[in-house]
Amino acid sequence: MTQVLDLAKRLLAAPSVTPATGPVFDAMEAMLAPLGFEVTRFRRGDGEPGSPEEAVENLFAIRRGPEGSRHFAFAGHLDVVPPGDGWTSAPFEPEERGELLYGRGAVDMKGSIACMVDAVANVPADAGTISFIITGDEEGPALHGTRALIDFMKAEGHQPDLCLVGEPTSVNRLGDMMKIGRRGSVNIWLEVEGAQGHVAYPHLADNPIPKLVAMLAELDALVLDEGTDWFQPSNLEITEIDTPNRAHNVIPAKAKARISIRFNDCHSGASLSEKIGAIAQKHGGQALPIISGEPFLTPPGEFSDIIASAVKAETGLDPEPSTTGGTSDARFLRAVCPVIEFGLCNATMHKRDEAVAIEDLSTLSRIYAAIAKDALAL
Amino acid sequence: MTQVLDLAKRLLAAPSVTPATGPVFDAMEAMLAPLGFEVTRFRRGDGEPGSPEEAVENLFAIRRGPEGSRHFAFAGHLDVVPPGDGWTSAPFEPEERGELLYGRGAVDMKGSIACMVDAVANVPADAGTISFIITGDEEGPALHGTRALIDFMKAEGHQPDLCLVGEPTSVNRLGDMMKIGRRGSVNIWLEVEGAQGHVAYPHLADNPIPKLVAMLAELDALVLDEGTDWFQPSNLEITEIDTPNRAHNVIPAKAKARISIRFNDCHSGASLSEKIGAIAQKHGGQALPIISGEPFLTPPGEFSDIIASAVKAETGLDPEPSTTGGTSDARFLRAVCPVIEFGLCNATMHKRDEAVAIEDLSTLSRIYAAIAKDALAL
Ligand SMILES: [Zn+2]
Ligand SMILES: [Zn+2]
Repeated sequence: MTQVLDLAKRLLAAPSVTPATGPVFDAMEAMLAPLGFEVTRFRRGDGEPGSPEEAVENLFAIRRGPEGSRHFAFAGHLDVVPPGDGWTSAPFEPEERGELLYGRGAVDMKGSIACMVDAVANVPADAGTISFIITGDEEGPALHGTRALIDFMKAEGHQPDLCLVGEPTSVNRLGDMMKIGRRGSVNIWLEVEGAQGHVAYPHLADNPIPKLVAMLAELDALVLDEGTDWFQPSNLEITEIDTPNRAHNVIPAKAKARISIRFNDCHSGASLSEKIGAIAQKHGGQALPIISGEPFLTPPGEFSDIIASAVKAETGLDPEPSTTGGTSDARFLRAVCPVIEFGLCNATMHKRDEAVAIEDLSTLSRIYAAIAKDALAL
Repeated sequence: MTQVLDLAKRLLAAPSVTPATGPVFDAMEAMLAPLGFEVTRFRRGDGEPGSPEEAVENLFAIRRGPEGSRHFAFAGHLDVVPPGDGWTSAPFEPEERGELLYGRGAVDMKGSIACMVDAVANVPADAGTISFIITGDEEGPALHGTRALIDFMKAEGHQPDLCLVGEPTSVNRLGDMMKIGRRGSVNIWLEVEGAQGHVAYPHLADNPIPKLVAMLAELDALVLDEGTDWFQPSNLEITEIDTPNRAHNVIPAKAKARISIRFNDCHSGASLSEKIGAIAQKHGGQALPIISGEPFLTPPGEFSDIIASAVKAETGLDPEPSTTGGTSDARFLRAVCPVIEFGLCNATMHKRDEAVAIEDLSTLSRIYAAIAKDALAL
């Protein structure tokens, strides 16, 4: 068994449905300490299991290079989504079948964490500073995960120059895609208040639904932008409509809707909240935004070139620099330093029988080692 | 105590929250039999209490006039809406306080039934045929009430020439308003099916909400008519919007709404259902109508003149011929003969401490007697 396959199995064998604490971090610490890493672990949250304040664990590990050397960081998460039913083998008992290694987290993203651990063993300690920014709260509310790690790093004076996030960005073949950006995301709750009344006496009531309908028609027709060189156009979806407290033959007192906007770097969560709020007010309503992430973009340049060269050398592929898909913890890390995501194939992520090609683990380990060396040599 | 006050108290003392059966009908039968009425009572429905098939009772009473004489019918209901809390005296223990008689059903409409029973005692038996069409299912689903009575009358060959419904139509003073018509009512459920998907990948989904919003905007802008000489314009209200099976960050698979149309005699339930159905289809949706009543109109003429003269003689008022408000059982009786509604003041109907002015009972009894005599003399 190769070193990287062994590392991946050790991580996969520790159940870590989000939020993760304990054994999976013990396994991670046990791998990093022998490689010369100084490991700090801390927990946040003291709420009941299942509550947004449920305890989560975070790990920061650093191996310092010579004074003044560059600092390359790798970020990831050890928590996984619930396995669900119908697995062929137990989701937390990693099993090789044919060319594949099965287990929850195989590609998202214990597999890639194992690859980076294996990779740094092959990067000389004097090449520069390397750190791991590992959370147990990425798949859940992400309140006390990477954000808390960033606060910790700031307080301790750890400032990476570049950060690679190990999310499974490859689509059909390892190396076909990296994410140089992600769109931002904001959910906005819309509400119009009216005055309840009987449908037979509409003049005594004030129906809020036509106002909400007019508001939603205007929002649906809104063109937020035409896209940019690197981003597709921002998109607004109406995800929910509702009239609470329904009764028969009654004009309702309130009408509600929710929209979800995925937006590129033409906007910020605040600028969109303001724009939508003005439209809501125009139609007699109110808007309550919750911004779940700002967009990030690391425009193609030296960092993406390093990744592309390493991928090309090992796979022959030219990874497409993409900004599609959902959000990731890169939305937080963008505030620290340039960040790009690159990792395993995502076909089985969040699905039953999640699996990674065993050969991909070795290939990704070599790619990661090349990236780390080149990032430190810049 | 006057005769009519005594009759009203006997009806009010029998609890009869909708659907009504038994004791309140026993009381009614005991009043009518001595006056020469042939009374038929029948029950419909055999479902559990609380179900739409819960048993209801109906009563038809007839006192036949000479061969070939005219037939005047009085229609009403002995069921009442639930009393609710906060009554000053027990809702089913009629109590006189000051000028008023309190009890659930005082104005809607045991009071007016007592008035008509009292009135017919003062109409000579040879004046013509008089009947009572009394249901215990008007305030509820009305499935087995007046409709069943109409079927019964048709089967038995009872064909009234005119029908007075004793609903509380007066507003501020007894006699200020009668209802010569009522609008029809149709509820239409609207639905648009889409394809569910994640908000980050809208091209893989088909959001049904914008289609529903466009449909509702068109429906809200619809002018159904400008009103008629006797009816206000038909009115469409959106009463409900909904996206069932919500999930976070998900474009829903389905969007729903409900509209309620109160319409005048420019339309029928079927014509409106067709019109709305076409608009729904245009926007990729479907419409499911449930017609709860067609409009009725008895245009001002000899029947309304009789009522107006009787009211004027006793109160000095000219009753306004109105078509406003909700639906009543006149929506069914319209198929039998011309129908007009006239009764007590409706200020306390369906409220706690429902009450009737004791003097109004005597006045209404005299008005009803005059109407019956004149209607039979036409
Ligand atoms: Zn992930
Ligand atoms: Zn009534």
